[in-house]
Amino acid sequence: MNIYDIAELAGVSIATVSRVLNDSPNVAEKTKLRVRGIMEEHGYVPSGFSRGQNATKTIGLICPDAADDYMAKAVARLEGSLRDYGYDCFLYCSGYGYEDCQTAVNALLRCRVDALILIGSIYADDDPDSQRVNYIREAAAHTPVFMINGYVRGENIYCAVCDDFDASRAAVEEMIASGRRKILFLADMDTVSTNLKRQGCQAALAGAGLELQADVSVGLSNQINQTRDHLLKLWELDVDGIFAANDALAAGALKYAKRRGLSVPGDLCVIGYNNSELSVCCDPELSTIDSREDRLCQIVIDFLKLHLGGRRGGGKVCAKGCLIRRGTTDF
Amino acid sequence: MNIYDIAELAGVSIATVSRVLNDSPNVAEKTKLRVRGIMEEHGYVPSGFSRGQNATKTIGLICPDAADDYMAKAVARLEGSLRDYGYDCFLYCSGYGYEDCQTAVNALLRCRVDALILIGSIYADDDPDSQRVNYIREAAAHTPVFMINGYVRGENIYCAVCDDFDASRAAVEEMIASGRRKILFLADMDTVSTNLKRQGCQAALAGAGLELQADVSVGLSNQINQTRDHLLKLWELDVDGIFAANDALAAGALKYAKRRGLSVPGDLCVIGYNNSELSVCCDPELSTIDSREDRLCQIVIDFLKLHLGGRRGGGKVCAKGCLIRRGTTDF
Repeated sequence: MNIYDIAELAGVSIATVSRVLNDSPNVAEKTKLRVRGIMEEHGYVPSGFSRGQNATKTIGLICPDAADDYMAKAVARLEGSLRDYGYDCFLYCSGYGYEDCQTAVNALLRCRVDALILIGSIYADDDPDSQRVNYIREAAAHTPVFMINGYVRGENIYCAVCDDFDASRAAVEEMIASGRRKILFLADMDTVSTNLKRQGCQAALAGAGLELQADVSVGLSNQINQTRDHLLKLWELDVDGIFAANDALAAGALKYAKRRGLSVPGDLCVIGYNNSELSVCCDPELSTIDSREDRLCQIVIDFLKLHLGGRRGGGKVCAKGCLIRRGTTDF
Repeated sequence: MNIYDIAELAGVSIATVSRVLNDSPNVAEKTKLRVRGIMEEHGYVPSGFSRGQNATKTIGLICPDAADDYMAKAVARLEGSLRDYGYDCFLYCSGYGYEDCQTAVNALLRCRVDALILIGSIYADDDPDSQRVNYIREAAAHTPVFMINGYVRGENIYCAVCDDFDASRAAVEEMIASGRRKILFLADMDTVSTNLKRQGCQAALAGAGLELQADVSVGLSNQINQTRDHLLKLWELDVDGIFAANDALAAGALKYAKRRGLSVPGDLCVIGYNNSELSVCCDPELSTIDSREDRLCQIVIDFLKLHLGGRRGGGKVCAKGCLIRRGTTDF
């Protein structure tokens, strides 16, 4: 009988059981009474953090969409490493909604996983101390949480992030140094990572006394031709550089350029993000930022081994993204 | 009246009732008699194969590589459908080796999944009655097995396949009707599905009194530029049509054509397979066979619901692949 059983029997979340244990004022007295009753009935003694004997040798992997190229690679890589290390993996594709993320975390906690790995900045917040991501801190009170490209500050939360801000700023600085002045930032949806890329882009421009020429969000992911069409509809568009938050968006930008009769990189230079298979499929091949998904996975696995070996606390390691120069830039 | 009720009435655990049902030697005869008496008295009929009260509400998903575009889409789709249906998913990326496949199946059986879903023809054999895939039949004796694009004949094995042979033959027949005579078949690794595509291609050619001009295997998956380089090394290559077993291979073929100065589709027509995101990223966009991964997933989910609803046996449903005509063909 552990906290997961109590939560299930009481029909409440693990976070709520945790709050009852801590006598939090945010839980209704009626709920407290019911949860405590169930604990008493089943002779439940909270075990503190030690899970030792209860280890299930399973890890929960959560990502918004396992079909997304970046996440698919991370899922495959983590699953392989964890398998080698003797762990089975639960996979939960949460979708992108805030409540969906909470649901996913709670569902996998009920599976009694020994750790949770969250893939994608969607699970984080711009502010690592934000209250908005308390559900992650609450999960981490019971099960260590590891994050790929998201940073939440808290006990037993271990984060591996790419320095999206710095990598984006450096790339756009090069665009500017090559003479580009009218730069468009292209995104699909707003995530922490997207915001950092946009801010890096803006910082580079600000350093040269410039502003973004256009900030375009197409609002859908991995849709190359829809991105092209979205750009084609912006008749007044006059840009000489496009910095895209992922490679599918950049591939759409290349198709836009072709339709508009713009030469790449002569009339328009384009930089994508993630160094995906799409980037070498494009013609010309896409210059793109390697966001070091392989390295982030390795950092998380290393953190996990340290934690399972007894280390406590939490932590953050940052990997340096770097521009892969191919045919859509001339610098 | 279910197993819980029996356990309660008999004053024993559910596990004990289960052991009585299985006539385990680890239960005292006296207990067996009492439990059986209660079952008889209340007309309790064990639900046989349906794991009923022992259901873990987990499903094991096995694929060779969750980073592969086709498999990633299938994993995401299945996980979502199963989640909606109340099931958690274990994911096991087995790799492509025969023994790795067996290891994966056995590992997930140990996780007591309610069903196994195997994604990819790697798990099947050219012959649906082959002894080589007995490990799948053995698994199916304990847990129903569902296969995406593989067919193994056996009790409680349910298969959804794409008619790769017919789809390939029809596409190559069109190539031939458009005047192409020197056709190359391009593959990465030998799987059941690859063999069917090759055979379909050969059947179309045989119907026109022709043979394959070349049968090239690059021996690695999803490596666009390595495919290009492999083709460039075949100096004597003289072909006017390339039929590729997946879109990454076809994208490599397009890059080969570009390097050789061949116009597409004028000098060389190219058809890929899977209708992946890569196919719309290529320039010109790739004509490709839609292998109906979405439909195969739906068939498997439907089979699973029928099975969990009490249907027994096994089965096979075939979805019709179809050519998506884009810029690399002129028919």
